[in-house]
Amino acid sequence: MYKEKLRESFKVYDEIVLKCFCGIFIGAIVAICEVVFGKGLEWILNFREHMGCVMLVGLPFAGLAIVFLFDHWGRISRKGMGLVFEVDQGKSDWIPLRMAPFMVVSTWITHFFGGSAGREGVAMQIGATVSHYFGKYFRFKNSGVIFMVAGMAAGFAGLFGTPITAIFFALEVLVAGTLKYRAMSCAIPASFTAAYVSGLFGLHKSTFKIGNVAELNMELSIKLLVLGILFGMVGGLFAYFLKHTKAFVTNKITNPYKRIFMMGIIVAILLFVFGKCRYSGVGENLIVGSFTSEKIYSYDWILKFILTILTLSAGFQGGEVTPLFAIGSSLGVIIAPVFGLNPLFVASLGYCSVFGAATNTFLAPIAIGMEVFGYQYFPFFFVVCAISYIVNQNESIYALQRQVRE
Amino acid sequence: MYKEKLRESFKVYDEIVLKCFCGIFIGAIVAICEVVFGKGLEWILNFREHMGCVMLVGLPFAGLAIVFLFDHWGRISRKGMGLVFEVDQGKSDWIPLRMAPFMVVSTWITHFFGGSAGREGVAMQIGATVSHYFGKYFRFKNSGVIFMVAGMAAGFAGLFGTPITAIFFALEVLVAGTLKYRAMSCAIPASFTAAYVSGLFGLHKSTFKIGNVAELNMELSIKLLVLGILFGMVGGLFAYFLKHTKAFVTNKITNPYKRIFMMGIIVAILLFVFGKCRYSGVGENLIVGSFTSEKIYSYDWILKFILTILTLSAGFQGGEVTPLFAIGSSLGVIIAPVFGLNPLFVASLGYCSVFGAATNTFLAPIAIGMEVFGYQYFPFFFVVCAISYIVNQNESIYALQRQVRE
Repeated sequence: MYKEKLRESFKVYDEIVLKCFCGIFIGAIVAICEVVFGKGLEWILNFREHMGCVMLVGLPFAGLAIVFLFDHWGRISRKGMGLVFEVDQGKSDWIPLRMAPFMVVSTWITHFFGGSAGREGVAMQIGATVSHYFGKYFRFKNSGVIFMVAGMAAGFAGLFGTPITAIFFALEVLVAGTLKYRAMSCAIPASFTAAYVSGLFGLHKSTFKIGNVAELNMELSIKLLVLGILFGMVGGLFAYFLKHTKAFVTNKITNPYKRIFMMGIIVAILLFVFGKCRYSGVGENLIVGSFTSEKIYSYDWILKFILTILTLSAGFQGGEVTPLFAIGSSLGVIIAPVFGLNPLFVASLGYCSVFGAATNTFLAPIAIGMEVFGYQYFPFFFVVCAISYIVNQNESIYALQRQVRE
Repeated sequence: MYKEKLRESFKVYDEIVLKCFCGIFIGAIVAICEVVFGKGLEWILNFREHMGCVMLVGLPFAGLAIVFLFDHWGRISRKGMGLVFEVDQGKSDWIPLRMAPFMVVSTWITHFFGGSAGREGVAMQIGATVSHYFGKYFRFKNSGVIFMVAGMAAGFAGLFGTPITAIFFALEVLVAGTLKYRAMSCAIPASFTAAYVSGLFGLHKSTFKIGNVAELNMELSIKLLVLGILFGMVGGLFAYFLKHTKAFVTNKITNPYKRIFMMGIIVAILLFVFGKCRYSGVGENLIVGSFTSEKIYSYDWILKFILTILTLSAGFQGGEVTPLFAIGSSLGVIIAPVFGLNPLFVASLGYCSVFGAATNTFLAPIAIGMEVFGYQYFPFFFVVCAISYIVNQNESIYALQRQVRE
């Protein structure tokens, strides 16, 4: 009986070692893809900024090109993140390899012409697609989903350089309320490898200093409670409005060409009128502005909020996470004086908790706060992210996210 | 439709606010119970140490008293932690209020006569019992389990003074592989309140300084990997041997009086022969020794390991967590030179990861490492605890823990 038990143990360990090596391999491959995507995007964002607002003129036409691309060659890859969720739920059984280049190119196009969107959606889709492809060659239990989760972690870590956040996010985002523990032994090496490799090629995480914070006493706890509720509602509303705006415009204008063209015109005009392209791109300018001495306007967060929702509802590609960071941190800076707190500190709380509330995740936002601002702020991130997770009412920017809150 | 949605929202928020206030109430009540238990235990442990090994003579007779106590008045409360798991799984529907005092007294007796056991099991059972009792007066969905989880968090936080660890532990321990998110809004205020209130009465968390640690490079990563595997196996084996030793002695000696008396004699002799009561008590001496300049012997961890398992298998009461901290940290100190690492640092890794592997939890051990040794070591705790969680093979000291590793 003991021999039997030992033999079984070794079989389990064999599988763990195999998953671990697969993870390293996936991490390296995905990281290289992320470097291409990230470096390309960096160049495009700089170029667009250098050109000023003139590129906005092309936005509606760029939209037509994106729809045409997916319509003629993209097939089911147009589903994007939705497809990743479907694979997890067993509703689809493959992710076409072409999804990665299609998403990359359409996101590049979106940002080249000044749309307001993110990049992490694409990063994770690259990871999921590439790793799912390799997963076909390995047959262990749930290998499809395990590889996909590892790929998502590698994608997030490769682009943002935050391996622990990437692991938590990939483990918890697919089914709200649970963690995909089975994928851990593959996702952890994948994520650390990806962060390491993409670091070699010059993709580094952004870090910001927020200075000293008071001790966690009763007064500060109450302030954190209120901030958690506020950020949780903003994140929840972002998810809510994104879903409903998408549904609304899809209903009103059923032809995707017409929809993206008309919406493209509206978005381009709004982006020009409000802030002269201040709200184009991923929102890095607002994030950096929040943590330096640059001016942040009281309406920055709401304009970024609206314009990102409109850009994505139109059918442009990208993601939501970096804009969410921007919304959270610029809102934080503005409301900090009301609470008599250090603006950088409140901005950091907004940075992570709005992201958590909008994606309906709890551990990833705590981890991103720690990896970007410093581990010593853990209790503050814990409290605020927990509260905003509780009040977000299970809204999520990922429409297909299953929810099991036991 | 929007009005409907708003009304629903308010109903949800009403419930959250209610749970939150219940949590504060539970936290305060449970904390006071923990103060009584903890202060009493402190006095007993000091007294026993002062008396030397003479108290061991009474251990077999103390065992008889414990069995008699539960046999005549304890009823189903003898199930202890098992009952908590049964309530969660719907197999039992109540925890008798008497379980709290019975567990407290039997643990006091165990430690008064020099047994080797912990205290956290009792702490959480006090919390679960008291809060479950109040849960009857509130009727919302799953209120029984939600109150119980909040009580467990409060119990752990009240005794150890580590609120965030307590929250994670209570949320994840009942069903390995999932988190009881529904209980968050009650468990978080309960846990912070309990830590605060018990702090007012002089129960504080232990903290230790471990100094500077090298950067997380390739070489250190490999060392952490090996350490994670080692600690994971030690924790897993602790759970494995506890389960099987319990089953073995229960089979061999079916009469509980005979069992605890005979085992009590053996344990008392072993405790005297090996180290003259060095391995009696919760193991605080080994923990403090590991993080100061006191001598730690190479066999300390294995003797604590064996004697704790024997004490608990005999039928004495207490818990396993503090002994696990002691086993992990004293093992860490001993093996640190092999890896060329700071002994305090390796001890801290052992402290949390052996606990995680034995209880089959992942987030609580990371949090305890951060709350006891400092938040800045987060990445190290993350890596080592993740690895030991992966290699522990789902063994758990809680025999009734359900396991859902998706």
